Amino acid sequence: MYVRVDAGELRALATRILARTGLPDGDAQVAADVLVSADMRGIESHGVSRLHSYYLERLRRGLINPLPKVRPVRRSGAVVVLDGDNGLGPVVAYRSMETCLELAREHGLALALTRSSNHFGIAAYYALMAAAEGMVGLCLTNTQPLVIPTFGRRRLLGTNPICLAVPAGRHPPFVLDMATSVVPIGRVEVHARRGRAVPRAWGADADGRPTSDPDRILRGGGLFPLGGTERTSGYKGYGLAAAVDLLAGVLSGSAYLDEVKGPGHPEPCGVGHLFGALRLDLLGDPEVLRDRVDRFIDRLHACPPQPGRKGVLVAGEKELLHERDALAHGVRVRREVLARLRAEEG
Amino acid sequence: MYVRVDAGELRALATRILARTGLPDGDAQVAADVLVSADMRGIESHGVSRLHSYYLERLRRGLINPLPKVRPVRRSGAVVVLDGDNGLGPVVAYRSMETCLELAREHGLALALTRSSNHFGIAAYYALMAAAEGMVGLCLTNTQPLVIPTFGRRRLLGTNPICLAVPAGRHPPFVLDMATSVVPIGRVEVHARRGRAVPRAWGADADGRPTSDPDRILRGGGLFPLGGTERTSGYKGYGLAAAVDLLAGVLSGSAYLDEVKGPGHPEPCGVGHLFGALRLDLLGDPEVLRDRVDRFIDRLHACPPQPGRKGVLVAGEKELLHERDALAHGVRVRREVLARLRAEEG
Repeated sequence: MYVRVDAGELRALATRILARTGLPDGDAQVAADVLVSADMRGIESHGVSRLHSYYLERLRRGLINPLPKVRPVRRSGAVVVLDGDNGLGPVVAYRSMETCLELAREHGLALALTRSSNHFGIAAYYALMAAAEGMVGLCLTNTQPLVIPTFGRRRLLGTNPICLAVPAGRHPPFVLDMATSVVPIGRVEVHARRGRAVPRAWGADADGRPTSDPDRILRGGGLFPLGGTERTSGYKGYGLAAAVDLLAGVLSGSAYLDEVKGPGHPEPCGVGHLFGALRLDLLGDPEVLRDRVDRFIDRLHACPPQPGRKGVLVAGEKELLHERDALAHGVRVRREVLARLRAEEG
Repeated sequence: MYVRVDAGELRALATRILARTGLPDGDAQVAADVLVSADMRGIESHGVSRLHSYYLERLRRGLINPLPKVRPVRRSGAVVVLDGDNGLGPVVAYRSMETCLELAREHGLALALTRSSNHFGIAAYYALMAAAEGMVGLCLTNTQPLVIPTFGRRRLLGTNPICLAVPAGRHPPFVLDMATSVVPIGRVEVHARRGRAVPRAWGADADGRPTSDPDRILRGGGLFPLGGTERTSGYKGYGLAAAVDLLAGVLSGSAYLDEVKGPGHPEPCGVGHLFGALRLDLLGDPEVLRDRVDRFIDRLHACPPQPGRKGVLVAGEKELLHERDALAHGVRVRREVLARLRAEEG
């Protein structure tokens, strides 16, 4: 059961709860905005439903630092390596992307690699910070291990998402925000609760073999990388997940592979991120380039659809429809999630 | 039927043939090296078997410029936009990556976007140029349209590959070089010739629906993006293909989507590329970072394998085994391909 709640109200509620755990008001606002943005964009799995397990409980157990000093450990020109000081993921990520944008304003192109962070919510939030300034935005992160490498039978890789945002003109930005696994683990959990089979392309059992039984994926098995098995090129998704981990985890000096801990683990998670920004005006007249992006989108929209389909969507459009709906009618939140938030406030 | 030929001999043969079409000797050497590298790495579809259709015929028909002036049309700091002047793809790409590496040597991080080029062979060749200098290398390109966007029923996107190379220490570099389609069109053609069905995840018929009939994919249909249909997250592969086209085609000022022409088309192809390079020493002590990459690779190798599999491979390893075999025993080339090359020389 879902209820609707005003976005501003939900943001204020989440902010107050976070501030009570010792977060400075500004940081609490940032984290609340990241979480509520996820709900508004229809990414419930990264929204306020995670406030307790991913953030509050870890703050209260001292597993996340409420007052991190996010500091550069290496800086040279347009590239910076930051230490997140085990701060709240959205706070560390927001400050990292701010640093990256400062460098990009000066140099035109910049990269920030961040170590010792935590789960940061939706990657699109940070890439869109770049797009809002007329820059191409890139955001990668590693995550706790859930994905089995091709030919293997153990979870070694995270769902390691890739996010790229490209500003357009008439159109909203192109925003690709995708995990490099076939599906999120949450989707397998939903099938398991309902006792429903899953497509054999989604995950493997404890022997690394495709299975349609969600319980076998959850207990001892794992997710397939994008592409599924070898025959359908799952090694490409595996390669992408590894590439993300190399950039965001290995080269940032953070944890990588199964060193990265999930939110239930009684140690710092050691999550690593990468942020990138590129000013459009370095490539040409920004108006001309935005117009080219618009025409690219127009031509995808003009693609004749499959019978029974309305048309071709461009990355980020589905999320934007959710966002508009949330602004007009309130954010969709599960009744029990909202009740728990309100109870939290007492 | 395959024969073995010495790599140096094959390179010299291809160089002489290319030089006769009017290419300067140095450019002919570069192009020959790119093609022979593909054969050595086991990527026959991008090797000397393409010399005639992709390169010689187009040079002879005046559709590729043998003497391109590859020039910067915009340069600011570490970012450059280059015009390939419709030169041979490998020549334009090699010079573009050289420019990118020069900028990266100076600035630590650099990007080169290249318009008005042609099919450049294997992306890994250029990304490995960066890795050979201790840099992370990135290479993207758009290609002729073969891939149907999710929910659509027309080929609009190329197989738009993504290549990332990361230098290691003891180990050879990590090299991911993957098309963003499930499979290359050549693999469907092989099944069609042999009258064999293909997995339904590979491609669609003229209505955009999955089919196991390779002829329906080839005639009026198209390839699925990595992931296959919507249910197995094909929209992620579609998003990646679109992201590559935006960066390499739209923002470089080149052709994009189905404006990009294939080698059989009687007009310049308008292919666009993107090259990136990042010096490891900007991120930390390069020896420490290379050691971290080594340990990342070691831990993937240590993953327990599926029953019946030898072990987990890391991106680039399969190609390296081919390369070592080719160095030891000669490059594997189809007998008729070698015969045609020798006949060409007269």
